[in-house]
Amino acid sequence: MSKSWTKKDGPQGDICLGTRIRLARNLEKTPFPATANRDQARQVMHTAKKLAESLNQLASFRFYELAEVDQLERQILMEKHLISPEHTKKTSSKGLILSENEDISIMVNEEDHFRIQVLLPGLQLKEAWELADRVDDLIEANVDYAFDPEIGYLTACPTNVGTGMRGSLMLHLPALARIKQLGNVLKSVSQFGLAVRGLYGEGSESYGSIYQISNQVSLGHSESEMLEHLGRVTKQVIASERQAREYLQEHNRTESEDQIYRAYGLLSQARIISTQEAMDLLSTVLLGIDLGMIQDLDRGLVKKLMVEIRSAHLQKMMGQSLPAQERDRLRGSMIRDRLNR
Amino acid sequence: MSKSWTKKDGPQGDICLGTRIRLARNLEKTPFPATANRDQARQVMHTAKKLAESLNQLASFRFYELAEVDQLERQILMEKHLISPEHTKKTSSKGLILSENEDISIMVNEEDHFRIQVLLPGLQLKEAWELADRVDDLIEANVDYAFDPEIGYLTACPTNVGTGMRGSLMLHLPALARIKQLGNVLKSVSQFGLAVRGLYGEGSESYGSIYQISNQVSLGHSESEMLEHLGRVTKQVIASERQAREYLQEHNRTESEDQIYRAYGLLSQARIISTQEAMDLLSTVLLGIDLGMIQDLDRGLVKKLMVEIRSAHLQKMMGQSLPAQERDRLRGSMIRDRLNR
Repeated sequence: MSKSWTKKDGPQGDICLGTRIRLARNLEKTPFPATANRDQARQVMHTAKKLAESLNQLASFRFYELAEVDQLERQILMEKHLISPEHTKKTSSKGLILSENEDISIMVNEEDHFRIQVLLPGLQLKEAWELADRVDDLIEANVDYAFDPEIGYLTACPTNVGTGMRGSLMLHLPALARIKQLGNVLKSVSQFGLAVRGLYGEGSESYGSIYQISNQVSLGHSESEMLEHLGRVTKQVIASERQAREYLQEHNRTESEDQIYRAYGLLSQARIISTQEAMDLLSTVLLGIDLGMIQDLDRGLVKKLMVEIRSAHLQKMMGQSLPAQERDRLRGSMIRDRLNR
Repeated sequence: MSKSWTKKDGPQGDICLGTRIRLARNLEKTPFPATANRDQARQVMHTAKKLAESLNQLASFRFYELAEVDQLERQILMEKHLISPEHTKKTSSKGLILSENEDISIMVNEEDHFRIQVLLPGLQLKEAWELADRVDDLIEANVDYAFDPEIGYLTACPTNVGTGMRGSLMLHLPALARIKQLGNVLKSVSQFGLAVRGLYGEGSESYGSIYQISNQVSLGHSESEMLEHLGRVTKQVIASERQAREYLQEHNRTESEDQIYRAYGLLSQARIISTQEAMDLLSTVLLGIDLGMIQDLDRGLVKKLMVEIRSAHLQKMMGQSLPAQERDRLRGSMIRDRLNR
């Protein structure tokens, strides 16, 4: 999550944790990263470094050579959703352009030459799209994109050809999960041609009832048409989650309170706790705050914990890399410390 | 448990929660309760009532006609281990003689005419036996027991013939359970000719790692021989539990702390909780106190809760009979209230 994600909620922020727009862009007459040779890849990095400077008219940006960023820091960037899991692994001639508030990030030489990403809190598809579009324009003023007038932007993977755009919304759906309606709702999302993914994108598991919904194809429709569709379906999912929350409040109150406070009790006292369990318990406690069942706990604190308990964040806080077992102890002690403050 | 059980610990009281001696006695020339007619049963009740008066030289006693004790109160007597589950059900011509501090109780017209019981905290076989023996002598000074010079006291069930005595020790064995050695230890107890039972005696389940160990036969040995054997085996079980506790402290510390504090977290926060779950969690918390892992919680409070969360106690506190679901809520709220005081 970007820095602003943990600081403010954004529209419908109780359910929609964040909006992401990603644009896949490639340079004309340059092979895609998978087939580029070293010189060609270095040339892309060189171009990117210059671009970072010209982007400074929009915000304050920094350019990173990922090979010079240590592994823990790369992991943290991934946990913040600023780079992909793949981009943490292979680092040679790979880069990142990052705005100071972390709302805008551009992966360099990931699957495509540039992956422009805008990450905003809450449901802000239009705002995120406009910001991504401005970044895109600023880059296009300096370089020539690989573009075909018939089919649009050319990309390494055919599913991104066309607009090169993917819009994603990160949704917290604990009530639907609790009343066993999540499967149905997510199935209908797929039937609308949208993709459902876990917390860290493709192939990743769901943690803490957090799901990403995004458009699957970027060809055949304009960006605004695609985002409108994504927004419409997402609003339906959000409405279903709201209904599920009302149901819990009206017909399942004591049982819900029991589950919510048990989660709170475990978080406040556990000595050893995995990321998965902590995310699930924090998700339940967040639901409790949203339902008004827990009143003396700061929502921002819980949301912040949902990022800070992740392994790399935890290790950075301790200033060292730690084995999994140590991390689980440290996670327990950190959560206790925060909750009992 | 008798009143003194929750008030003081007694020798080895961290593991041995209580000692019980029970003597089965019947009146000469009177059919056993199962075959006695109404007049004969009333005659036994009449005798018992007079006996209660003569016992007052030992302590302050009261005589109860169980038919005049309401069902909830009978349930409470059972939860305190002062009468058997069977004695709560059929009440016609059934009685109880009870000392003020509840250390001595005599069931009248249960399986036998008299079931004298002494219940002391901790491991006090000798003390309990001496007290039971005094009660027995006082009764025998007033009535003629059914006694055969060859085989001893005659009882309704052949397994009680002879001394009519059963000694039972109530043991809290959470560490053996946790290191998966409980099965082996209890099996060896059986091999020594002793019986292992759950919290409420024969056929009852184990709650909260509490087990009763008692002698199985009352024929062929003197009382003191039998009690010596029972005490010797029990001390071995206690030693095994102590070893298991040391193991947890030395080799399994963090994991044990985790489980103990999770139990504490759940107890402090759950809104709905069954007797079984509450007993298991309280048992774990009690272990935590005994291991010195939980330091700011009163041991007596936890032991007291182990009795007071039982259904009849809970309902008496509320002054009404309640459906199971309501009891589970009330239990949650009562435990929270006590722990967070």
